[in-house]
Amino acid sequence: MMLPDTPENENVFTWAAPPLKFGAGAIDEIGAEVAARGSSSCLVITDTGVLATGFPSRIAENLRNAGITTEIFDGVGVEPTDLSIEEAVTFARQREWDCFVAVGGGSALDTAKAVNLLTTHPGELLDFVAPPIGAGKAPWLPLKPLIAVPTTAGTGSESTTICVVDLLGLHLKAGVSHPRLRPSLAVIDPRTTLSLPSQVTAASGMDVLSHALESYTSVPYDAKPAPDDPMRRPAFCGSNPISDVWCETALSLVGKNLRRAVHNGRDMHARTQMALASTYAGTGFGNAGTHLPHANAYPVAGAVKSYRAEGYPEMPMVPHGQAVSATAAAVFRWTYPADPARHLRAAELLTGRTFTATDGKEALPHVLSELMADIDMPSGLRSFGYDESDVDTLVDGTLKQTRQLAVVPRSLDRAAAEEIFRQSL
Amino acid sequence: MMLPDTPENENVFTWAAPPLKFGAGAIDEIGAEVAARGSSSCLVITDTGVLATGFPSRIAENLRNAGITTEIFDGVGVEPTDLSIEEAVTFARQREWDCFVAVGGGSALDTAKAVNLLTTHPGELLDFVAPPIGAGKAPWLPLKPLIAVPTTAGTGSESTTICVVDLLGLHLKAGVSHPRLRPSLAVIDPRTTLSLPSQVTAASGMDVLSHALESYTSVPYDAKPAPDDPMRRPAFCGSNPISDVWCETALSLVGKNLRRAVHNGRDMHARTQMALASTYAGTGFGNAGTHLPHANAYPVAGAVKSYRAEGYPEMPMVPHGQAVSATAAAVFRWTYPADPARHLRAAELLTGRTFTATDGKEALPHVLSELMADIDMPSGLRSFGYDESDVDTLVDGTLKQTRQLAVVPRSLDRAAAEEIFRQSL
Ligand SMILES: [Fe+2]
Ligand SMILES: [Fe+2]
Repeated sequence: MMLPDTPENENVFTWAAPPLKFGAGAIDEIGAEVAARGSSSCLVITDTGVLATGFPSRIAENLRNAGITTEIFDGVGVEPTDLSIEEAVTFARQREWDCFVAVGGGSALDTAKAVNLLTTHPGELLDFVAPPIGAGKAPWLPLKPLIAVPTTAGTGSESTTICVVDLLGLHLKAGVSHPRLRPSLAVIDPRTTLSLPSQVTAASGMDVLSHALESYTSVPYDAKPAPDDPMRRPAFCGSNPISDVWCETALSLVGKNLRRAVHNGRDMHARTQMALASTYAGTGFGNAGTHLPHANAYPVAGAVKSYRAEGYPEMPMVPHGQAVSATAAAVFRWTYPADPARHLRAAELLTGRTFTATDGKEALPHVLSELMADIDMPSGLRSFGYDESDVDTLVDGTLKQTRQLAVVPRSLDRAAAEEIFRQSL
Repeated sequence: MMLPDTPENENVFTWAAPPLKFGAGAIDEIGAEVAARGSSSCLVITDTGVLATGFPSRIAENLRNAGITTEIFDGVGVEPTDLSIEEAVTFARQREWDCFVAVGGGSALDTAKAVNLLTTHPGELLDFVAPPIGAGKAPWLPLKPLIAVPTTAGTGSESTTICVVDLLGLHLKAGVSHPRLRPSLAVIDPRTTLSLPSQVTAASGMDVLSHALESYTSVPYDAKPAPDDPMRRPAFCGSNPISDVWCETALSLVGKNLRRAVHNGRDMHARTQMALASTYAGTGFGNAGTHLPHANAYPVAGAVKSYRAEGYPEMPMVPHGQAVSATAAAVFRWTYPADPARHLRAAELLTGRTFTATDGKEALPHVLSELMADIDMPSGLRSFGYDESDVDTLVDGTLKQTRQLAVVPRSLDRAAAEEIFRQSL
């Protein structure tokens, strides 16, 4: 039969997610999972904070009980850098591992992706970073099975193909992204989140919210020109019917459960729903993409001077979830005209209340500010020590985040970015 | 930290889906996809009916343009049997294939799964069929990449790990199921459904509806006892929070679009939404499971005498979607007490109307009958030539479907099964 010509705009979207195992008790099946993959050795990758919860040792014991030779590497950096990854890779290269298990937040998961890549391929991290910073190579060999065990109900890294790294020498955040980096299994056990401090729960929950909200409002996949080479689609394809379903469901779960999880960490129902929300949002944004709040989060976290966050390691840092949500209200006020209906719908999903066009562009920012106040999130960039004199530096940092900027739903110029940072002070 | 003990009931669910590529034009990227996998040869598996649409040849040409040695096998049976699969395997074994592409309905996709299994493993199909019928072996070697191209907006086989086969000598339908059988990519191009005859669209659409409705009402995953061995969970785990989201979304899309797609096959929007619904439902039921309407469909299709269906090959057959929906109204009247809220919610999603407990157990059957009448589906088992004297045989066939019966939400005895078939005459 004759077919209509393919239009010039993009007409195809892609979607993928790792297999999931979800529920209280799921981490106690990791030994069986690894054995079923025919692996006889496994490196558990985590950080000292997570190690102190006892979960990595519990998983290692479970692996050993399944007959798997197991070691734990606990040297993951608070934010992975080229140096901290080099250290992890050097440790991993001491022997040939059949399998990796990453336990922790985004740092542990991203580090494990890099370790998997660099122990199966010759070369160094920069070879795989996109040009012009790196050589932009794609992995050409099979990677080992990587089981991701997220313990913060926030990262979403278990669902994505991306590993984000601070390149210390270059003073840059860079991402390595390839479908082979996606974990082969995500094991989500809500019990691992029961002991998170309330401020970690709050920041991780706002990260989940922002993943869902950014994907949901990202540029629609079919509003962009089709790529010349279909195999060179960007990692982020923009909002699409499948990511929309997951993002809407995640927003509704966050609206109902984040306050409860922050105010009573032992609320197993709220913890379970937030773990689901994190997975749903990961499944959405891992394909659609995040945009401006995440682009802004890079310089906000990167230029920190002395801010220390309650519940986090004793060092100057802006936790990712705090950095992301610091500019969210201003961003969604600015993106409102791109799709008013979606912004109002997001406000409805987060609150269960009804919003109409009369509520306008302030509806969603108001809902976000209300939620952040209720869970004691820092309410502006000044909390982190920034003022008007930092706006230029912050804007510079944002404008470098090309992967995120590609799915911002309005065209962003320097003045707009400045105004968003100024409103967020 | 101390963790609460894992309760005795199942507390973990699993979920997995193949990566998807969706949209008008997607089939024209298959050559690039196969080349990107490093494959240099590819066997396209289809049937003569689908071949006549031109799509398999279009895909073969696309593969050859990408430098892939390609042949088409068009001998897939209307319903795959051990004999028709043997024939496909014999054809495939003439050379070593790097990759398989299956184009068509469930028959083509299931045949390709079997071909992939039997050309990568020694032995025959019965070795992999569950005991007591077969030897119940699990595949122990890697399979080749299998790209599934569903062209009927119905099967869902692109999402599942299952291959269903008629064992002619044994007069039995049997399933082979293993995660390695799941396609490595599903390519869904709604244009391939534009030329489906209206009665094929109707039956395929009712199959989608039933996948979603059965998964949604299947026994909740945590209402069953935990397995002794976590690696021996059944292929169908029962309804769970992730399958629920997919199923609810699919029901809503079917309610809005099936009538339109049946009555105007060229309605590209309705075709696209039905293709999405099929994918959503496949992703849901591929993990949660189907129950009684699908269990009943096996004997209903298997014991056919002389019924011929408009739009289908000229031979006695009850198309799968007709067989499934023939008993659906009676089944959902009977399952209502297991979860009244879900049955009412399903009726709401299918209609956009509101239903309450006052509407009771007749609400959903009524909505189904209304829809089936609107799209000219056969309205009872008598249409296929069955009468009271066939009920015993049909019940016998249903009671053999252990995979489906395991997730029926009420305990089913012979009398209940008889009553369902009698109501469906
Ligand atoms: Fe994030
Ligand atoms: Fe079906």
